[in-house]
Amino acid sequence: MQAISDALNEKAWVIDCAAALEPPSLSDNTADVERLGRELSRVLQEPVEIPCSSWGRIPGLLRRSNFRVSARLFRRKGVWRLLDLYSDDSKPPNLSLAMDLGTTTLVCRLTDCDTGEVVGECTVPNPQAEAGADILSRIQSAGGPGGLESLQRRVRDGFNGALDTMCGELGISPSSIGVAAVAGNTTMTHFLLGLDPSNIRKEPYIPVVNRPGWVPAPVHGLGIHPNAELFVFPNVGSYFGGDLIAGILSSGLHKSPDVCFLVDVGTNAEVVLGNSEWLLACAGAAGPALEGGVAKMGMLAGEGAIDHVRIDRETLETRFSVIGGELPSGICGSGLIDLVAELFASDVIDQRGKIRGMDHERILETDEGRAFVIVPGAGTAHGRDVSLSQVDLDILLRSKAAMYTILTTIVEEVGLGFGDVDKFFVAGTFGTYIDPSMAIRIGMIPDLPLERYTPLGNSSLAGAALFLSDRRLMGEVESIAEKVTYLELNVNAHFMGLFSAAKFIPHTDPSLFPSAARS
Amino acid sequence: MQAISDALNEKAWVIDCAAALEPPSLSDNTADVERLGRELSRVLQEPVEIPCSSWGRIPGLLRRSNFRVSARLFRRKGVWRLLDLYSDDSKPPNLSLAMDLGTTTLVCRLTDCDTGEVVGECTVPNPQAEAGADILSRIQSAGGPGGLESLQRRVRDGFNGALDTMCGELGISPSSIGVAAVAGNTTMTHFLLGLDPSNIRKEPYIPVVNRPGWVPAPVHGLGIHPNAELFVFPNVGSYFGGDLIAGILSSGLHKSPDVCFLVDVGTNAEVVLGNSEWLLACAGAAGPALEGGVAKMGMLAGEGAIDHVRIDRETLETRFSVIGGELPSGICGSGLIDLVAELFASDVIDQRGKIRGMDHERILETDEGRAFVIVPGAGTAHGRDVSLSQVDLDILLRSKAAMYTILTTIVEEVGLGFGDVDKFFVAGTFGTYIDPSMAIRIGMIPDLPLERYTPLGNSSLAGAALFLSDRRLMGEVESIAEKVTYLELNVNAHFMGLFSAAKFIPHTDPSLFPSAARS
Repeated sequence: MQAISDALNEKAWVIDCAAALEPPSLSDNTADVERLGRELSRVLQEPVEIPCSSWGRIPGLLRRSNFRVSARLFRRKGVWRLLDLYSDDSKPPNLSLAMDLGTTTLVCRLTDCDTGEVVGECTVPNPQAEAGADILSRIQSAGGPGGLESLQRRVRDGFNGALDTMCGELGISPSSIGVAAVAGNTTMTHFLLGLDPSNIRKEPYIPVVNRPGWVPAPVHGLGIHPNAELFVFPNVGSYFGGDLIAGILSSGLHKSPDVCFLVDVGTNAEVVLGNSEWLLACAGAAGPALEGGVAKMGMLAGEGAIDHVRIDRETLETRFSVIGGELPSGICGSGLIDLVAELFASDVIDQRGKIRGMDHERILETDEGRAFVIVPGAGTAHGRDVSLSQVDLDILLRSKAAMYTILTTIVEEVGLGFGDVDKFFVAGTFGTYIDPSMAIRIGMIPDLPLERYTPLGNSSLAGAALFLSDRRLMGEVESIAEKVTYLELNVNAHFMGLFSAAKFIPHTDPSLFPSAARS
Repeated sequence: MQAISDALNEKAWVIDCAAALEPPSLSDNTADVERLGRELSRVLQEPVEIPCSSWGRIPGLLRRSNFRVSARLFRRKGVWRLLDLYSDDSKPPNLSLAMDLGTTTLVCRLTDCDTGEVVGECTVPNPQAEAGADILSRIQSAGGPGGLESLQRRVRDGFNGALDTMCGELGISPSSIGVAAVAGNTTMTHFLLGLDPSNIRKEPYIPVVNRPGWVPAPVHGLGIHPNAELFVFPNVGSYFGGDLIAGILSSGLHKSPDVCFLVDVGTNAEVVLGNSEWLLACAGAAGPALEGGVAKMGMLAGEGAIDHVRIDRETLETRFSVIGGELPSGICGSGLIDLVAELFASDVIDQRGKIRGMDHERILETDEGRAFVIVPGAGTAHGRDVSLSQVDLDILLRSKAAMYTILTTIVEEVGLGFGDVDKFFVAGTFGTYIDPSMAIRIGMIPDLPLERYTPLGNSSLAGAALFLSDRRLMGEVESIAEKVTYLELNVNAHFMGLFSAAKFIPHTDPSLFPSAARS
């Protein structure tokens, strides 16, 4: 009997292997554990290890099932290790769990290891937010008594709660999950592992660990199979985390013959430039205004967020779409970009990004300078205007300038121009909602043919799931981590010059954005 | 700096490796764990693994000790794994723990890994005795509710209590013990690991596991270093345990060019015959009367036991020695053998082993037939006579007959005679106290030149300690376990014939014991 397919055997981390053992006799009195190991090795043609945590259950199960069992095995370093043993007819599904460990949200995806089918996915807010909205305040909170333990517990509980809910709805047990992988930034990874993150943000910026690799169930505390192992994506350093390694893996950038960009906008904007030969990365504070939470009416892309805006250049009448289709309660990054591009085209804001004084019902004078009302209170979810103030606009323009400056700096570093970039991957929900033509019009991203812009979605989650689908990708993950060179942004006079020029709309040098002039 | 000697590096399971790390800087921002691993690998010139249980402590310790630390590492499968990390000046001693897991007693021996010196040794009764004196009653007790857990707990507590006492007296912490090895019979090994022993005594006699190998601290529950591993000596089957593998290892029988015997008398008599090429083993119920506890006044060799006896052939005056030198309270195996040999020589018992009716103050008629008073009550610790009844004598003679028959059967099996046996190792306290010339006079062991008889002492403990002293012995342990062939004693007419003949003193065929005739 061919117990498992060769194809699955070659790439799966976890397999189920049916084994019909020769029952013991006086002429073959091999012990139960060695008998099981011998048969599994014979079927798999590879070494099998049976850890002591399983020994106690083996004799009873073998005899109850007449020595016909199904073994679930996990493969590492060329050895199949027994995860669990089932009687032939009571085998639960064989699931893997990919996790995106975000600062703001936690995402779980369950996949059937045998078929490759996604069984379920769920997103929950990261419960650490209660201990600190941003990563810096959480690092501070970790330094207090019991702070680190509490942050670790919150993120574990967040994942476990999400899992329990999802598994409950699907009618499966979380113990069906025999392998997991998680990708997060360096600090979040430290929190998950209960490691002190304080040195990450202090010169010379030293993480506790960069290559956590596989950690066993008792360490990560996830309520999956008690013998399951969790792969924790490697960090390259304090500012380049496993989420980006997973993102690169899922984009395929590291295998591309042509030079590509990968941009992930979160709290920071993280940027990777490279191809199959080299990978250069840097990060900068380009994100906050785009992610929401900084602009007064800013919010994450999600239910109730305005994601796209169009403005009538004569009447300033505003059309917009809202994620989820209900009344708007705020505006997310892609909406802000659209808004600024349209306000500029409508001459409501000038090239320096200042809202002009105009006698129009949508232009108000407020405590935070002039403001443009996108949706008056009568049309919003909370009854208050959704508007953009000069203060919000200034922050946004600094973010877009930072982004463009980082992109410019990194291509210059390798002696290339934007024209040499073949693909421009945009990760995250930001990448999903952003309209690249609008981002080009405000001068945030280079004026490349639109087809070069490729949204990646949640590439951290996708990378973790991809890794779980094929154990041969381990080498790719390791080689990405080894190949990445992190470029410390040197905020010198040249950088500041580029930055100042990029704060204009689209730029002090409009020839960099020929398509913006045409719009 | 040469951190450790090459010789130690080559054979030690656990070493301390001093490491002076390059402190981190902006130009070398390797994470703490990888920085430590890199330096240890460099010093040891071998791969080093730092398990996640240690990660949390590393950053603080590195910085408090200015990046000069001492790492304690355990080696397995060609990889050094971090056990613990100390600041350079707070390193505890590096100890190993050898354990003899006996049915009756538990023995611990602490050795300094760096010097090879024995630091301490202690023996305690196996607390499982309260749950059943012999192994069969304990197997029964294990089948009751909570029985197995209770037996496991008792043996753990026994070892831990012994360790705590010994370490307390020595002024060291049990967490200084970074590696341990235990040797016991198959059933006792199952109890230690919390494994159901019931199939061991039921046809076809299948242990749960024969090669437990290394098990981590949480499994064995010993209060040694929490990252320490315990090596559990392999069994060959239900009736041939790790204690004998350890015994063979310590005797060197498996490397001998000449054929040797190894006999261990416990509850069973276990016998190994072999050399560097082959090992044949069998076991039989030859022990009880020799171990004490069966003869009414029988006891284990220990304080208050008569270990040697001489009888004046005219007056029947009795001289004896007592272990510990105080008044006697019983008689151990070696004393019984002496006694029977001397009673036979004095014509108090006949060739069939019957006590003759004689008018002598030392010969009494009792409920258990005639009895010989070794020490009258006035001279004993408890005020009662220490004597040997006909019933006791019959049991003893069956034991000695079984022993001789087993030895005869196993040499016949390989087509040899006793004259071909070069060395005759006698293990255990029995081996330490027995006078081979006396055992020959009663026909218990073959009439070989006395210099061939070699007492081994506690060879199970010695084997475990030897293994811990040199990791290169792992291959020898494995090859012993692989090489042993277990001979199931076939209790047929031939065996019974041999047995009946061997119940005589020394034998129905006195020509087998020429030296007995001369005594």
